[in-house]
Amino acid sequence: MTSKSIKRQVFEVLEKGQGNDYWSRRFDIFIMTMILLNVAAVIMETVESIHDGYIEVFDYFEYLSVFVFSIEYVGRVWTCTYLENYKHPFWGRIKFIFSFMAIIDLLAIMPFYLPLFFSIDGRVLRVLRLFRIIRIFKMGRYSTAFNMIVRVITKRREELLVTLTIVFVMLILASSLMYYVENEAQPEAFRSIPETMWWGVATLTTVGYGDVYPITPLGKLLGAFIAILGVGIFALPAGIIASGFDSEIKQRIKEKEEKEF
Amino acid sequence: MTSKSIKRQVFEVLEKGQGNDYWSRRFDIFIMTMILLNVAAVIMETVESIHDGYIEVFDYFEYLSVFVFSIEYVGRVWTCTYLENYKHPFWGRIKFIFSFMAIIDLLAIMPFYLPLFFSIDGRVLRVLRLFRIIRIFKMGRYSTAFNMIVRVITKRREELLVTLTIVFVMLILASSLMYYVENEAQPEAFRSIPETMWWGVATLTTVGYGDVYPITPLGKLLGAFIAILGVGIFALPAGIIASGFDSEIKQRIKEKEEKEF
Amino acid sequence: MTSKSIKRQVFEVLEKGQGNDYWSRRFDIFIMTMILLNVAAVIMETVESIHDGYIEVFDYFEYLSVFVFSIEYVGRVWTCTYLENYKHPFWGRIKFIFSFMAIIDLLAIMPFYLPLFFSIDGRVLRVLRLFRIIRIFKMGRYSTAFNMIVRVITKRREELLVTLTIVFVMLILASSLMYYVENEAQPEAFRSIPETMWWGVATLTTVGYGDVYPITPLGKLLGAFIAILGVGIFALPAGIIASGFDSEIKQRIKEKEEKEF
Amino acid sequence: MTSKSIKRQVFEVLEKGQGNDYWSRRFDIFIMTMILLNVAAVIMETVESIHDGYIEVFDYFEYLSVFVFSIEYVGRVWTCTYLENYKHPFWGRIKFIFSFMAIIDLLAIMPFYLPLFFSIDGRVLRVLRLFRIIRIFKMGRYSTAFNMIVRVITKRREELLVTLTIVFVMLILASSLMYYVENEAQPEAFRSIPETMWWGVATLTTVGYGDVYPITPLGKLLGAFIAILGVGIFALPAGIIASGFDSEIKQRIKEKEEKEF
Repeated sequence: MTSKSIKRQVFEVLEKGQGNDYWSRRFDIFIMTMILLNVAAVIMETVESIHDGYIEVFDYFEYLSVFVFSIEYVGRVWTCTYLENYKHPFWGRIKFIFSFMAIIDLLAIMPFYLPLFFSIDGRVLRVLRLFRIIRIFKMGRYSTAFNMIVRVITKRREELLVTLTIVFVMLILASSLMYYVENEAQPEAFRSIPETMWWGVATLTTVGYGDVYPITPLGKLLGAFIAILGVGIFALPAGIIASGFDSEIKQRIKEKEEKEF
Repeated sequence: MTSKSIKRQVFEVLEKGQGNDYWSRRFDIFIMTMILLNVAAVIMETVESIHDGYIEVFDYFEYLSVFVFSIEYVGRVWTCTYLENYKHPFWGRIKFIFSFMAIIDLLAIMPFYLPLFFSIDGRVLRVLRLFRIIRIFKMGRYSTAFNMIVRVITKRREELLVTLTIVFVMLILASSLMYYVENEAQPEAFRSIPETMWWGVATLTTVGYGDVYPITPLGKLLGAFIAILGVGIFALPAGIIASGFDSEIKQRIKEKEEKEF
Repeated sequence: MTSKSIKRQVFEVLEKGQGNDYWSRRFDIFIMTMILLNVAAVIMETVESIHDGYIEVFDYFEYLSVFVFSIEYVGRVWTCTYLENYKHPFWGRIKFIFSFMAIIDLLAIMPFYLPLFFSIDGRVLRVLRLFRIIRIFKMGRYSTAFNMIVRVITKRREELLVTLTIVFVMLILASSLMYYVENEAQPEAFRSIPETMWWGVATLTTVGYGDVYPITPLGKLLGAFIAILGVGIFALPAGIIASGFDSEIKQRIKEKEEKEF
Repeated sequence: MTSKSIKRQVFEVLEKGQGNDYWSRRFDIFIMTMILLNVAAVIMETVESIHDGYIEVFDYFEYLSVFVFSIEYVGRVWTCTYLENYKHPFWGRIKFIFSFMAIIDLLAIMPFYLPLFFSIDGRVLRVLRLFRIIRIFKMGRYSTAFNMIVRVITKRREELLVTLTIVFVMLILASSLMYYVENEAQPEAFRSIPETMWWGVATLTTVGYGDVYPITPLGKLLGAFIAILGVGIFALPAGIIASGFDSEIKQRIKEKEEKEF
């Protein structure tokens, strides 16, 4: 068996399995499980009682995960030359390293290696530990859900920008007006326009925590108008994502049906 | 009149009446009324004043209900062999017993029989009493609403899974970020990522009880972005159910119109 | 001029003006103004400072309104025989009196006449005064908005019933489960299933006042699941009304365009 | 170079650049930047610490902005005669001055000039400073988002009016009923129908701050019904704006595709 054939085999195992490749599919399931367990670990670690009771388990699992993800990363960089886009042994690999998924792969193992090479203080270390949550994005290679949401956002980019602009202008206007009306009565909660925006977002998204709300009659009147008119405006981006998602799904169904025939 | 003809009659009465079968329809209405009264009883029993005042009425009604539902269950198991799917006298009946609606029928009477055969402590008994609320699902045989929602969820299974995955990933990311930002300022409410998820669900579904919300400027900025962007994502499953429901209704109308011609 | 021609004239003035009938349109505008002023009066009267300052104005305006609406009512009953549906001098009028809009017309003036014929205590009197808000429905004759919402609800009757059933079942299940989980920790707020339904409605409609919410870990987990899944279910009736409204509007536009050609 | 050619040049620079006119596009970007910086300045000025630290920067920036916007305004009035609609040297300019965008342009600089000509007390001065937020509307000339929302609202004017009427009637009815039911138990929060409307808006838009909510059993029952039924009604205007936006976007995409061929 030549060296090239090993590289080829590694490449095929790393790539998403096509259904008939036993080892490749096994590997996909293994990586997926590792990712999910990692996300669970990051979440669970923040629960004090669990963290304190199983600190060693978490540590060993982290070593194992970084080991696996590091090998996976090296393997991908090594074998990426089989892909049409990254053919060139040197420039192809550089290009690959700066591709979106490869950056995610690198960022996913970074929090482990950085403290080995640089002296990092405790606070930053804590951020780094939490930063491991980025490993969730490694699922992007395997999950339809990830691909779909990325495609919808890419396709509807323009509409989303337009509606988000409207949302932002609406928020500025509503908050400026409310700031002026309520500032005197509640100098704490409506201290400035940026702080009034907290009220604005809570109201226009209809979350309405209830930590800030107008108390003057004029403020309530203004707040009522803003709520009635603004809720519709704030629903626009949601509507665009939903409709984009809908047509994406319909297209997938159509493609599936065409394959079946 | 032979034994078989009695079995046939029982079968036809138990089956949903087809409009021209007087006794079968009467029986349907009787069972529906029993189910509705049972649901009402479970709900009303939890109101202390009603419970204390009518404790005997509730008990006798429970005996009557279990009696009726038990006969119904036995009848259904006995006569299920008339159905194409459950023809075989033994294996057909076994298969029938493990069908969804038959399990519901059994679970609906279980809470009464279990304490007769096993010694059960008070706390579990209370759960069992409440468990009778499962009788509401017996309505599934008669109600269009039940059938429709089941059909919509079955048909849109995949899309619902995809969007629920996105919702869950969104929730994890939002809660992880917010946990890191707010944990120091509010160690009680944002004690861990799982606990921060309570804030995440309340915000992203726009319920916004107001028991937890960010108080630091950075937390508010993050919360505002999460609310504006996340609400659209969380609206996806609702949109899929709504659109599935819509097309289900349109199909029903079309079928009705075709029948009329 | 014969008596019949006066009746005819009264009938035409009372009927909604067709654009070229000067007096009929004037009368429509007059009645509309009276209705709007009446609604404003009922609302304003509840503000103590306004009520105390203008008590006589409100009283005189009420006399005037009842006078006008009484004449209108008598006129409509008198002339209804011109309508195809209410031809018969006696039975036609009886039928007319029990038509929806005529009942509204009668209920709108009742609160004034009842205390003249029956001795009514203070509390009931107050209800009667507020009951005048029903005059808002008299707008139904003139307002497109009223007609449209009535038509949408009538047309989508079945779908609304189906979805409202689902909403109700969902509410019962969510509240029963939450009652069992939270009852011990918060015996006040989750005292019984009916009281837990207050939490259920606030959560599933996403209003989320924040007066009741689960505090136990299990209650929060259950609440999160209910919120994520239930919000979609509770959005169903809204979606049906919205889509019904949409098609109603499209039809109206089409009809308009056809008229123009 | 004749005077007319300068006027022509000024006109072309002021008009929105068509892609190949270098100076015109530069000028557009310059004005857009000025507008955005102005909006940011108005917002930032309200933050005390920023205001106190950079008071002179804000003042100088205001002088510069008014200078630029004044020249822009004079230039537009001077050169508007090139536009078909405002040809006449005198009446055309008068007509232009009263056009929507020109009024915005004037209002945008007014807050600076008014105090120079009239003696204005401190409170009004503060309103005037905040009034500069109106400069955000100057973006209307350049932003697709602004044009789109204006077009959607103009096109769906009628539907919006119809649904807003329904929303308003719903609000009046819900608040009148709730006022009557809760007034006795909570005379503060439900003091009058107009004050109860604050509860009505918070509930029906599902904002639900939680500052007011019914506490009597009857009030809760009524509140639950209003929430379940009313939320659908209040979603109507949002639905119309969303669907109007959707068709506007589809039309734009179609127009683009047609241009490309």
